[in-house]
Amino acid sequence: MSSKKIVKIIPLGGLEQIGMNITAIRYGDDIIVVDCGLAFPSDDMLGIDLVIPDVTYLKENLEHVRGFFITHGHEDHIGALPYVLREVPVPVYGTQLTLAIIANKLEEATVAVDVPLQVVSYGDTVTCGALSVEYIRTNHSIADSAALAIHSPAGTIIHTGDFKIDFTPVYGETIDLQRLGILGSKGVLALLCDSTNALKPGLTMSERTVGKTFDNIFADNTSHRIIVATFASNVDRIQQIIDCAVRYKRKVAIDGRSMVNIVNTAVELGYIQMPDNILIPIEELNRYPMEQTVLIMTGSQGEPMAALSRVASSSHRKINIFPGDVVIISSTPIPGNEKSVFRLINDLSMLGARVIFQDTHVSGHACQDEIKFLYSLIRPKYAIPIHGEYRHRIAQRNLCLELGWNKDNVVILKSGDVLSLTSKKAEITETVPARGILVDGLGIGDVGNIVLRDRQYLSENGIFIVSTCLDYDSKRFLSTPVIETKGFVYLKDAEHLIARASLIVQECMEKFEMSDGRDVNRLKSEIRNELSEFIWKEIHRRPMILPIITEAY
Amino acid sequence: MSSKKIVKIIPLGGLEQIGMNITAIRYGDDIIVVDCGLAFPSDDMLGIDLVIPDVTYLKENLEHVRGFFITHGHEDHIGALPYVLREVPVPVYGTQLTLAIIANKLEEATVAVDVPLQVVSYGDTVTCGALSVEYIRTNHSIADSAALAIHSPAGTIIHTGDFKIDFTPVYGETIDLQRLGILGSKGVLALLCDSTNALKPGLTMSERTVGKTFDNIFADNTSHRIIVATFASNVDRIQQIIDCAVRYKRKVAIDGRSMVNIVNTAVELGYIQMPDNILIPIEELNRYPMEQTVLIMTGSQGEPMAALSRVASSSHRKINIFPGDVVIISSTPIPGNEKSVFRLINDLSMLGARVIFQDTHVSGHACQDEIKFLYSLIRPKYAIPIHGEYRHRIAQRNLCLELGWNKDNVVILKSGDVLSLTSKKAEITETVPARGILVDGLGIGDVGNIVLRDRQYLSENGIFIVSTCLDYDSKRFLSTPVIETKGFVYLKDAEHLIARASLIVQECMEKFEMSDGRDVNRLKSEIRNELSEFIWKEIHRRPMILPIITEAY
Repeated sequence: MSSKKIVKIIPLGGLEQIGMNITAIRYGDDIIVVDCGLAFPSDDMLGIDLVIPDVTYLKENLEHVRGFFITHGHEDHIGALPYVLREVPVPVYGTQLTLAIIANKLEEATVAVDVPLQVVSYGDTVTCGALSVEYIRTNHSIADSAALAIHSPAGTIIHTGDFKIDFTPVYGETIDLQRLGILGSKGVLALLCDSTNALKPGLTMSERTVGKTFDNIFADNTSHRIIVATFASNVDRIQQIIDCAVRYKRKVAIDGRSMVNIVNTAVELGYIQMPDNILIPIEELNRYPMEQTVLIMTGSQGEPMAALSRVASSSHRKINIFPGDVVIISSTPIPGNEKSVFRLINDLSMLGARVIFQDTHVSGHACQDEIKFLYSLIRPKYAIPIHGEYRHRIAQRNLCLELGWNKDNVVILKSGDVLSLTSKKAEITETVPARGILVDGLGIGDVGNIVLRDRQYLSENGIFIVSTCLDYDSKRFLSTPVIETKGFVYLKDAEHLIARASLIVQECMEKFEMSDGRDVNRLKSEIRNELSEFIWKEIHRRPMILPIITEAY
Repeated sequence: MSSKKIVKIIPLGGLEQIGMNITAIRYGDDIIVVDCGLAFPSDDMLGIDLVIPDVTYLKENLEHVRGFFITHGHEDHIGALPYVLREVPVPVYGTQLTLAIIANKLEEATVAVDVPLQVVSYGDTVTCGALSVEYIRTNHSIADSAALAIHSPAGTIIHTGDFKIDFTPVYGETIDLQRLGILGSKGVLALLCDSTNALKPGLTMSERTVGKTFDNIFADNTSHRIIVATFASNVDRIQQIIDCAVRYKRKVAIDGRSMVNIVNTAVELGYIQMPDNILIPIEELNRYPMEQTVLIMTGSQGEPMAALSRVASSSHRKINIFPGDVVIISSTPIPGNEKSVFRLINDLSMLGARVIFQDTHVSGHACQDEIKFLYSLIRPKYAIPIHGEYRHRIAQRNLCLELGWNKDNVVILKSGDVLSLTSKKAEITETVPARGILVDGLGIGDVGNIVLRDRQYLSENGIFIVSTCLDYDSKRFLSTPVIETKGFVYLKDAEHLIARASLIVQECMEKFEMSDGRDVNRLKSEIRNELSEFIWKEIHRRPMILPIITEAY
């Protein structure tokens, strides 16, 4: 590595939240992009479907972008591809299962995109001008996950993707520690490492421990139906449920669109071993005794439209809970979903189900000791915590400092920072656009702060609309005011309030007619002020007040 | 106890959620009411300030209601008093600190109520006709908490209030296990027991363990300012912070309205020992070196308007974070508040504070082993889990079954159930109204499902208003349509869409003018349908569409 050669690391998302992971790596005129994820809207993004990264930097450097290199098939790493590929149509690289999931996704997209999807195997390297990208086996909560070693003339950068160290994985082998060690021994310029569990001490449990819990539950409940809800993408989890079903001679039915899609793909590609005659359609469930069946479905996070929530609210068209059913919730609530999951447990319990949620899940992310292990194995010059909120990344920084890294060699970035790295120096040399772009329906980026602020205000206060008709020539009113409210107060109970509000508006209208200027804008602002004060005095509320003056010609 | 004597237990709230605790106990013509709490609005109660119980049953039996007996001074046990006492003006009983907090609350209320507040000491019994109510010392996260033994000719009912067993409490003594044992030995008809932590194994830690953590943090950070956020009502926690401040020679400043109120009351009544010259006003903080100060404030749950949130968002008028500040968050996020607390930690960390939140809190509620201990001590005939969602109460039921209680003797109630108990039988004999009543501003119960549904819809979709003016006599339009939207789309970017929408409305208006009936309602529904379809086709959104036809005379 020469100290004059510069490689640039440009995160375009993923550093302010868990989600929307996308990082460009640039050497000279060659840019490769690691992942292209979406974020789910935060609580204040009312009515927003999802958030995608701002790829202005990629669009402005389109002729240099060599491809997207995807680490694994989770939404926060692939979900923005259907949007971003429209504007940055370059090849997409990834392992077999990852690309199969992406292919499904692109087929379902509203706008077609046609870019090459190139399968890469562990150990393969793809060369893109001065950069080459090597795929390295990892463990995570979805099969076929990879870390990437990005080799450049300025040095090698390792991007872990999402990872854990699973000594006894269900599918495939343990993360390729040997290859990471060899790369480390040759010198690694920077490690971009998953921070999700950097606040949690110890080691993440092996996926197999969940299989043992499942086995115990199946053994204890031979006379009850079992329903398991988990993430559709966790094919190893699903494999373990199927293995239990085989051992305990139960038929398996699968419900939830994404679950059915991923299981089909995973079975087809050999990531799930499904013995013949074990899978039955939901419709045939009632042909078997309940205790000889297992249902696998989506909805473990209490998502309102997912299968388990519909079952819990008795609104599923094909599945009802019967007293005695055993429901396993095989995930931990993602922050923000706690109340939905608790509601799910309450609702299922009230229907007579026994709900089991302890020891039924393990994380897919490395805890503190695994992170320490990885740093000690790779010994990068620069530590760059990624994939996490600030608190997670600071926690990883503290681990690095504990291990003896120099403060200046641990870099906490913001999305949009352009980090220029040489063998001597790490510095942020510029910034590029990197805000999240809101998607609402087919609209991309057309819902901004004003619209969100209005939605927030309407959600808490409702709207109070006053409409009246003004003769354009005479500037006299042709009607009494019409008042409509939404989300304000139940109108039938508030006739008196509305009648008094109408009188106040009529006074404003009379004043207008007698005024010199007859200024419509002034009238509107007067109506707003008078009504606002009146309603606050009466019931301490502040609905949005919207006067509409229609002018008649 | 005779098998013909009947005592009735009538929970009017508290069984569907954590919050809004209120339970009537009736024997013959005597009714006493245990607690009168509020609930905080759930996520779907948009714009609602708080939820209070429906006390129709008490109003209809007003001449029999002898008093409210309050177990402790938390909002979910006292918060509805300012509303309920207006309609049920009877004496309120409680321990000294509890009543002092209630008195503050009633003084701040918008509508004055004037009822006797009667201080009761541990061991005292208040007689109300055939019922008598005995106050028994417990431990909880607020001082002066009590369990109640309600003696009736049908037998004794013990209501634990919120409790834990603290062998080394900070203020006062351990829960009065001896008295509970004596009552048990005489025979207890029913135990109504706190279920909050019934899903958690083991014993709740003593409040003193938090003091030890605080001491370690103070010892480790002698050169930094320390800020502690906790619940205002946890006077034992505050005492321990003050004790540390004394030991490490720091001045104490207090911020947050509720914190200042409760600390003043607790110091005045002797529940907090505050040495002279240790408390300083916030304004004088800068007269002391930072490392010789401690700030105690509200906001440990990330509540947006509380002191710590304002500090974290740099919008506090008097306090800024300096790099090196140590911030202790001394509470655990209540379900639903996780994301706010995490945001707080991120924001404070970005300002350079070190945020400590591990081992800085213990619960005020009994875990599984304490619950088992209590049942084994009291050995009630009937077990009635209270204070918890369904999942918590079912967990307590399972503990009782483990301990050998008969299934029929563990009663899972719903709010509004009237449970008639004799020494032989427990049965639900009727139900009374017990829904939550929504309070929004000064309005009590005037925001119902329709208003909430509209707020929800507006929050996700916004509103699209079309206003036009129709001549009443000729039934011809006097104006082109005026379109206004809120929370829908940023108008400047959508001029084209709005223009086309206007044309669609004009077509509807022309059709109306040429139609035979000229039915205004039909016109409105046609505008709604046509616009709805057009907007969905264009951008896949469904704003609320509101046509307003003003008629000119």
